[in-house]
Amino acid sequence: MVAMRMMVAAAVGVAATLVPETLAQVSKAEACETEVDASKVQLREGTMNSKVLRAEYAVRGPLLLRALEIEDDLRSGTGDYPFSRIVKCNIGNPQSLGQKPISFTRQVLSLVMNPELMKDRSTTSYPSDTYERAEQYLDAIGSIGAYSESQGVRLVREEIAAFISERDGGVRAHSQDLFLTAGASEAVKTLLTLLIRDENDAVLIPIPQYPLYSSLTALMGGYMAEYYMGEEDNWAFDIEEVRRAIRAAKDLGKTVRAIVVINPGNPTGSKLTEEDMREIVSFCLEENLILMADEVYQKNIYRDDDTFTSFRSIVQKMGLLSEEGIMQASFQLASFHSTSKGVVGECGLRGGYVEMLGFPRAVIDQFYKLSSIGLCSNVPGQIAVGLMVNPPREGSPSFAQYEEESMAVFGSLKRRAAKLEAALNAMPGVSCKPLEGAMYAFPKIELPESFVAACLDRGQSPDVAYALELLESTGLVVVPGSGFGQREGTYHVRTTFLPPEDVMEDVLERFKAFHLSFMEKHAQAAQETQ
Amino acid sequence: MVAMRMMVAAAVGVAATLVPETLAQVSKAEACETEVDASKVQLREGTMNSKVLRAEYAVRGPLLLRALEIEDDLRSGTGDYPFSRIVKCNIGNPQSLGQKPISFTRQVLSLVMNPELMKDRSTTSYPSDTYERAEQYLDAIGSIGAYSESQGVRLVREEIAAFISERDGGVRAHSQDLFLTAGASEAVKTLLTLLIRDENDAVLIPIPQYPLYSSLTALMGGYMAEYYMGEEDNWAFDIEEVRRAIRAAKDLGKTVRAIVVINPGNPTGSKLTEEDMREIVSFCLEENLILMADEVYQKNIYRDDDTFTSFRSIVQKMGLLSEEGIMQASFQLASFHSTSKGVVGECGLRGGYVEMLGFPRAVIDQFYKLSSIGLCSNVPGQIAVGLMVNPPREGSPSFAQYEEESMAVFGSLKRRAAKLEAALNAMPGVSCKPLEGAMYAFPKIELPESFVAACLDRGQSPDVAYALELLESTGLVVVPGSGFGQREGTYHVRTTFLPPEDVMEDVLERFKAFHLSFMEKHAQAAQETQ
Repeated sequence: MVAMRMMVAAAVGVAATLVPETLAQVSKAEACETEVDASKVQLREGTMNSKVLRAEYAVRGPLLLRALEIEDDLRSGTGDYPFSRIVKCNIGNPQSLGQKPISFTRQVLSLVMNPELMKDRSTTSYPSDTYERAEQYLDAIGSIGAYSESQGVRLVREEIAAFISERDGGVRAHSQDLFLTAGASEAVKTLLTLLIRDENDAVLIPIPQYPLYSSLTALMGGYMAEYYMGEEDNWAFDIEEVRRAIRAAKDLGKTVRAIVVINPGNPTGSKLTEEDMREIVSFCLEENLILMADEVYQKNIYRDDDTFTSFRSIVQKMGLLSEEGIMQASFQLASFHSTSKGVVGECGLRGGYVEMLGFPRAVIDQFYKLSSIGLCSNVPGQIAVGLMVNPPREGSPSFAQYEEESMAVFGSLKRRAAKLEAALNAMPGVSCKPLEGAMYAFPKIELPESFVAACLDRGQSPDVAYALELLESTGLVVVPGSGFGQREGTYHVRTTFLPPEDVMEDVLERFKAFHLSFMEKHAQAAQETQ
Repeated sequence: MVAMRMMVAAAVGVAATLVPETLAQVSKAEACETEVDASKVQLREGTMNSKVLRAEYAVRGPLLLRALEIEDDLRSGTGDYPFSRIVKCNIGNPQSLGQKPISFTRQVLSLVMNPELMKDRSTTSYPSDTYERAEQYLDAIGSIGAYSESQGVRLVREEIAAFISERDGGVRAHSQDLFLTAGASEAVKTLLTLLIRDENDAVLIPIPQYPLYSSLTALMGGYMAEYYMGEEDNWAFDIEEVRRAIRAAKDLGKTVRAIVVINPGNPTGSKLTEEDMREIVSFCLEENLILMADEVYQKNIYRDDDTFTSFRSIVQKMGLLSEEGIMQASFQLASFHSTSKGVVGECGLRGGYVEMLGFPRAVIDQFYKLSSIGLCSNVPGQIAVGLMVNPPREGSPSFAQYEEESMAVFGSLKRRAAKLEAALNAMPGVSCKPLEGAMYAFPKIELPESFVAACLDRGQSPDVAYALELLESTGLVVVPGSGFGQREGTYHVRTTFLPPEDVMEDVLERFKAFHLSFMEKHAQAAQETQ
């Protein structure tokens, strides 16, 4: 067999490559010279599952890769940049930006991880209730190194059921309706795997959305029916717009089977009203849609005196759910939650769950089977879920520290949300709707016409070009609005408000300076061409 | 909307249900009465993705569910069983059966989990190198609660690359060819997701096999081309049989794209010879197949003076891989490894990786994208991989204890393998091939003709019936051979040899007594009908 010698990375174009350090290394001519006749290997450019190719996921896309490249340069002292560090506001990853974990979580987890620490309590300075919790988990799981039940540790599911019931005013929840998963993402994936049969099955997805939904729908081979959130009305839900979207999908012969609702909103930072929520549930009943409720930001609500309202509680108020937590109508609700957000921010532990309400046993059985093929979700993540939903109670030894730490994280997130919103709205041509929840702002940026025209001329999305310029000028990594979807002709970026407060100040200063000079430059350019 | 009141569990049949505690609870009339018109809800029996329904996964199937039900009865003192406990030999889950974790792994992980423990080293009695390793990981990841790179923590991938290179005699391995995943299972799933385009894409899978492969191939909508391992020849690989299988698949119009090889074998416990391995690689070159090498049992090799040979090292010896670790031919090798097996046995941490050799950048990019949709695999599991592949070295403070613990686990596994093999072969009508590796025996059981006929008459698989009788008589949970595949007319069960040695003695006694009485009963029945 004659093999053509070539650089694989060069063959497909370095700019298109997605793997960060390879990109860096290839550019430094370090690695990956390979002897492959690329037209002959079994799995290659033209022979992959086309559904995979259609799935897009922008949160960790090319912008991040350029950022990682710059980061490598800064570390090695090469390159010349007008900033000294990269600040990653592209992803809701609080601890990567210095948010401290809650001590209680980590104390209990360290005990469960190494039960030897429990032999002599004087070795640690942990409060006594951390030992009690660790013992309970160890009794339930035997060892954190053993596979758990595929559905998740029963004790943790019972803790979640109690949490849901308490949160929603006492209506009963059932451990057998719950599945523990690797973050909320895996739960969404499993449900869509069950749901989507072929390209005629459609899911209603908000625009803008968290691209998990579009990418998984594409991966499963389904159709994404887009409904737009009303930006002008603080990103409100608009039932007429959803009706338009479902009609359009039906006109294409699609079977619309589910609607995704993200509340509080990612990337919008907005929060649904109870009236909206009732309308959504009624619409689901009317159209026989599964309601996929992404409620992972339920603890991230920032308006004074505002609280989270779950879809479950609305369904109950509407008389669809009995006091015993049993669905009384032909209605299916899947609610997703995660350890990655809230004040806990334990992304790396990949803890999450879904509550499946109104699904017949046959569906639950198949969900269980899919879970069992992966054996179980990681047990540390499962325990992190238990600790999140069942925190120390008043009067327990860990309570004071837990409250203090949680309040500190929450208070700081709230301050940063307000600061970001104000700073964005103070920039000319930038408008940011009220940040009521979640961890993001999704400001609209009125880009200069000449800039837009020039970008489109060279086939580049204007928001991507803007975000890249922002990165090169300030070190700030945001995600272009096109990664989430936006009305044609409007341009946005998504940024988190997760950097520590002092870094936030600095970031906002630099963002503003960049934006002013960007607008100035293009105003001048426009004048010159007139 | 008028809803019909009914018991969902009853509607689909309790026996068919898969969710353990629901089954127990429903049978106790505790839960889940629901108001659903089951013919109207969106997702129900007849409206699920049919590929999901076709995927079968027996390791956690109905037999386990019956076992969990009995376990509940034993706990609550109801029911009357001739044994006092259930022993789960259905799954390779060492720590659930009392295998102790390696102290070094858990010490480092507890420090990374709660870095507060590192402030004053006198609080723990950990060796100093555990602190050094924890510091290195914390430097690399920031916090175990932060998402890592989607491909996995770079430091861990570098540790794996060094491990592979050392294991295989110095040929270089590259961190960018490695992906960290939730156990090996997730890596297999991602590769099959990329590979299988439609029902014409086929994967060669050994019979018997670990049902991960059949279930995922079905789930992705592909075709499983079965090749039989030669039981009579100690479960040897038979190239002529594989040629028959590929011809048969091609005759059906299938495109055969990959071959799965499990070495050491699950469920067979056998080990390939180097000659077999060379033949497999040559066959892959000839037929342009991806070699999917399940090498998760590489540390579980029990014959004296025997060692593990990786497919990577064979490929290198055949001149296909350069000293720099670059593929020199049109050949693609994916090798899977996991923290769940070996002497570590950290199943619950869901650590695993795949090395992708000979795949062009376009494929690696798509693998990366699929990983990024799930954000990253859990970080504790990633660190567990690092600790597995880079254990304490001679001279380091943790070395002596690490060696002692590893050797104790290994020695005990080896003794139990020998004991199980001998005990099975001492039973009349049972034959077990040499247990050279892995954690399982897959004995053939010559079931009495009358029993087989009676089972087939009532539509039950004879091996399932035998395994159920074994469970009801002894409390021992095994998996019927039909879950892994077996030649028609032959019957097997898979059992692990993971119970502690004293429990193993007892289990084998009970197994033997059951089997003798089972054979006796059916011999008598046969005489009576003559």
